[in-house]
Amino acid sequence: MQRALALAVTPGVPLGPNPRVGCVLLAPDGTTIAEGFHRGAGTPHAEAAALAEAGDAARGATAVVTLEPCNHTGRTGPCSEALIAAGVVRVVFAQPDANPVAVGGAGRLREAAVEVVGGEMIDEAQAINRAWTFAIAHRRPFVTWKFATTLDGRSAATDGTSRWVSSRAARLDTHRLRGLCDTMLVGTSTVEVDDPELTVRDEVDEPVAIQPLRAVMGLRDLPTDRRIFNDRAESVHLRTRDPEIALAELHARDRQHVFLEGGPTLARAFLAAGLVDEVVTYVAPMLLGSGRSAVADLGIHTITDALHLHVTDVAVLQGHGGEDTNVRLTMKPQKRSS
Amino acid sequence: MQRALALAVTPGVPLGPNPRVGCVLLAPDGTTIAEGFHRGAGTPHAEAAALAEAGDAARGATAVVTLEPCNHTGRTGPCSEALIAAGVVRVVFAQPDANPVAVGGAGRLREAAVEVVGGEMIDEAQAINRAWTFAIAHRRPFVTWKFATTLDGRSAATDGTSRWVSSRAARLDTHRLRGLCDTMLVGTSTVEVDDPELTVRDEVDEPVAIQPLRAVMGLRDLPTDRRIFNDRAESVHLRTRDPEIALAELHARDRQHVFLEGGPTLARAFLAAGLVDEVVTYVAPMLLGSGRSAVADLGIHTITDALHLHVTDVAVLQGHGGEDTNVRLTMKPQKRSS
Ligand SMILES: NC(=O)c1ccc[n+]([C@@H]2O[C@H](COP(=O)([O-])OP(=O)(O)OC[C@H]3O[C@@H](n4cnc5c(N)ncnc54)[C@H](OP(=O)(O)O)[C@@H]3O)[C@@H](O)[C@H]2O)c1
Ligand SMILES: NC(=O)c1ccc[n+]([C@@H]2O[C@H](COP(=O)([O-])OP(=O)(O)OC[C@H]3O[C@@H](n4cnc5c(N)ncnc54)[C@H](OP(=O)(O)O)[C@@H]3O)[C@@H](O)[C@H]2O)c1
Repeated sequence: MQRALALAVTPGVPLGPNPRVGCVLLAPDGTTIAEGFHRGAGTPHAEAAALAEAGDAARGATAVVTLEPCNHTGRTGPCSEALIAAGVVRVVFAQPDANPVAVGGAGRLREAAVEVVGGEMIDEAQAINRAWTFAIAHRRPFVTWKFATTLDGRSAATDGTSRWVSSRAARLDTHRLRGLCDTMLVGTSTVEVDDPELTVRDEVDEPVAIQPLRAVMGLRDLPTDRRIFNDRAESVHLRTRDPEIALAELHARDRQHVFLEGGPTLARAFLAAGLVDEVVTYVAPMLLGSGRSAVADLGIHTITDALHLHVTDVAVLQGHGGEDTNVRLTMKPQKRSS
Repeated sequence: MQRALALAVTPGVPLGPNPRVGCVLLAPDGTTIAEGFHRGAGTPHAEAAALAEAGDAARGATAVVTLEPCNHTGRTGPCSEALIAAGVVRVVFAQPDANPVAVGGAGRLREAAVEVVGGEMIDEAQAINRAWTFAIAHRRPFVTWKFATTLDGRSAATDGTSRWVSSRAARLDTHRLRGLCDTMLVGTSTVEVDDPELTVRDEVDEPVAIQPLRAVMGLRDLPTDRRIFNDRAESVHLRTRDPEIALAELHARDRQHVFLEGGPTLARAFLAAGLVDEVVTYVAPMLLGSGRSAVADLGIHTITDALHLHVTDVAVLQGHGGEDTNVRLTMKPQKRSS
C-alpha cells in the first residue's frame, strides 16, 4: 500500500477534479507484476493503467489500490468490472469511494467472488486527497484562508504601505500553496485597490503551467482591464456576497480547494459563516505599532468569545541574505466557546 | 572543556552577580584529577574548588576552566596565584575575563611561566554567562522584553478581558524565563491596574526559593499594599521615566538581566531608547478582531520604518487537554532601516 500511495502522488500529475490514485498488482508470491497511477481527468484510472501493463499476468493477482475501485462508467469504464474480467482474485484498498456516482465497487467485486479488504492506511490515503474527500463529503470546496501579519497584527503601515510585510521565502511559499489549490478567491475591493494577477508563479517569477481558477466575489461591476481578467488563467466574477452561494457555484464547477487571500472583509464573511476550514498565517517578525489590522473587526467583545484556532503545523521560513525569517502557522478553526 | 562547561551549569547553583564557571584539573596523561564549579557569590571559585579537591596532585597538572582565572582579591583570593602556588603548569580557558577588576589572570600566569591557551569554545562559554558578559561589556543589564499576543496582535478584548490569552504552557514557560533573570521590571500603571505579584512560581504555583528583584518604574506614588511590595521577594520603585537611569540604578545593584513584562507604554520607551536586547513573544492562535493592541503606537508611519526583529528561536508550546498550542518567538531587534 505504501508503494501504491507513493504512485498516487507521482510528481507532475496535473491537478483536476479527480482524486489521485495509485495501484500495484501483486503475484500470489508477493512480487510486483505491474503498477499504475491516475494521470488526471480523461486518462485511465490507476487500476486500468496497471491492468494494461500486466496483461494476462493479472490472472490470480492481488490489486492494492489507494481508493476503492469505481463502479461507474465515466470517461473510462468501471474499474470493478475490469478487475473481475482480468481475473484479479483479491483487492486491498485504502479509502472507500465516497463519490455518490462511483460508489459500490467493493460490493460489485464481492458479488463476483473477489476477496475485498478495505480501510488499510486510510488516513494516509485521505490525506493525499484531502480536498477531494472533503468536497465530496460536504458538497462544497475546502476553504484555506491565508493572511500575512506583522508580529503585532498589522498588514500595512498607517500610510498604507505594505511592501513587504512577508519575506521573499514566505511569498514563494504562498505561491507553492496556491499551486496546491484549484481556486483563488478575493473580494472586489482587493481587485479594485491592489489589482493582483493572482497567478501561481515559480521561483523565477514565471507563471506555472497549470493555473487555478481566479475568482472574485462581490456585487459591484469591475473594470475589465483588471489583471485578474487577463489571459494568464481562467477567471470568474461571482456576483454575490453570500459565501455559501459562492462556494456552491465553485462546487458546480468541480472546484475542491479554495485559497481565500483577502481582503479582511471577505475573510470575515467566511469566518462568520463558519466556512473557513483551514487558516494559514505568515508572521513577519516586525513591529509597526499602528496601521491597518490584518484581521477585520469580528464583533467579538470579550475574551471568552475569541475565535480559537488549533495549530496543526508550525514552519520556520529561513530568511536568506539578511531577509527576515518568517514563521508560518497552519491552523484549524475551533467552535466558538460561547 | 566540554566537561568544564557542563560543571559550570550544574543545576541548583543559585543565580547571583557572579558568572557560572567550571574547572577540570587534568594529569599529564589526560586523566581527571579533580573538578570544581562556582556555587555563587561568597563561595570558592571553580579553580579553588578543584585545587582543594586535588591537593598535592595538582602539581604538574593542566587546569581547563571556562573563564580566564581572576587576578584580584575579592571575597576569595586571586585564582591566578592559587594555580601558580599549586604547581599547575598549563591553563586552558574559554572566555577572557572582561570584568575590569578581575582582568589580568592570563598575564599573571604567563609571568610565572605557566603555559596559557585562551578562547577554546569561547562561544559556548559566553552563552552560559550571556547576561554577565553583556553587563560587563555594556555597563548595564541585558534587557529581555516579553509580550503575549493573539495571532492578530491583541492583548485583551474590547471589554478589557484578557484571561487567558496565553496558554498554561506559555505561562509556565514565562515563569521559567523569569527565573533565568535577576530583575522583573514593569511600569507604574501595570502595578496600579493589574496588581501583579511578579514572583517566579513553579508548576504547582509555589514561589521558587530564589526570586528576582521586582522593580517598578515611574514617577507617581504607589499604594504600599500593592502585591509587588509584599515580602515574597525584594522590590524597588525606580522613580524615573528614563530607561537609561533605571538601568544604571539596576546595574549599581549588580543586576545583569532585566525581564521587562510591560505594559506597552514602558516597552515603547525602552524600544525608542534602543534598550531592548531581546524580544520574547508568545503567540496565541486566537483571533479577537478588535481590542487592546499588544504593542503601543511606535510613531512608525511607513513600512520602511518598521522595527525589524531577527528570529533566533521558534518553539512550539504544545497545549494539553484541549488547551491552545502557543508559539514562542525569540528575537533580537535590528537597527531601524531608515
Ligand atoms: N493582509 C492581506 O493578506 C491582504 C490580502 C488581500 C487584500 N488586502 C488588503 O485589503 C484591502 C481591501 O480590503 P477589503 O476587506 O475592503 O477587501 P475585500 O474583502 O477584497 O473586498 C470587500 C468587498 O467584497 C465584496 N463582498 C463580497 N462578499 C462580501 C461579504 N460577504 N461581505 C461584505 N462584502 C463582500 C464587497 O463589495 P461589493 O460591493 O462589490 O459587493 C466588499 O466591499 C486592500 O487594500 C488590500 O491591500 C490585504
Ligand atoms: N500584554 C501584556 O503582556 C501586558 C503586560 C503588562 C501589562 N499589560 C497591560 O497594560 C496596561 C498598562 O499599560 P501601560 O502601558 O499604561 O502601563 P505601564 O507601561 O506599566 O505603565 C505606564 C506608566 O509607567 C510610567 N513610566 C515609566 N517610564 C515611562 C516612560 N519612559 N514613558 C512613559 N511612562 C513611563 C508612567 O507613569 P508615571 O506617571 O508613574 O511616571 C506611565 O504612565 C495594564 O492594563 C495591563 O493589563 C499588558
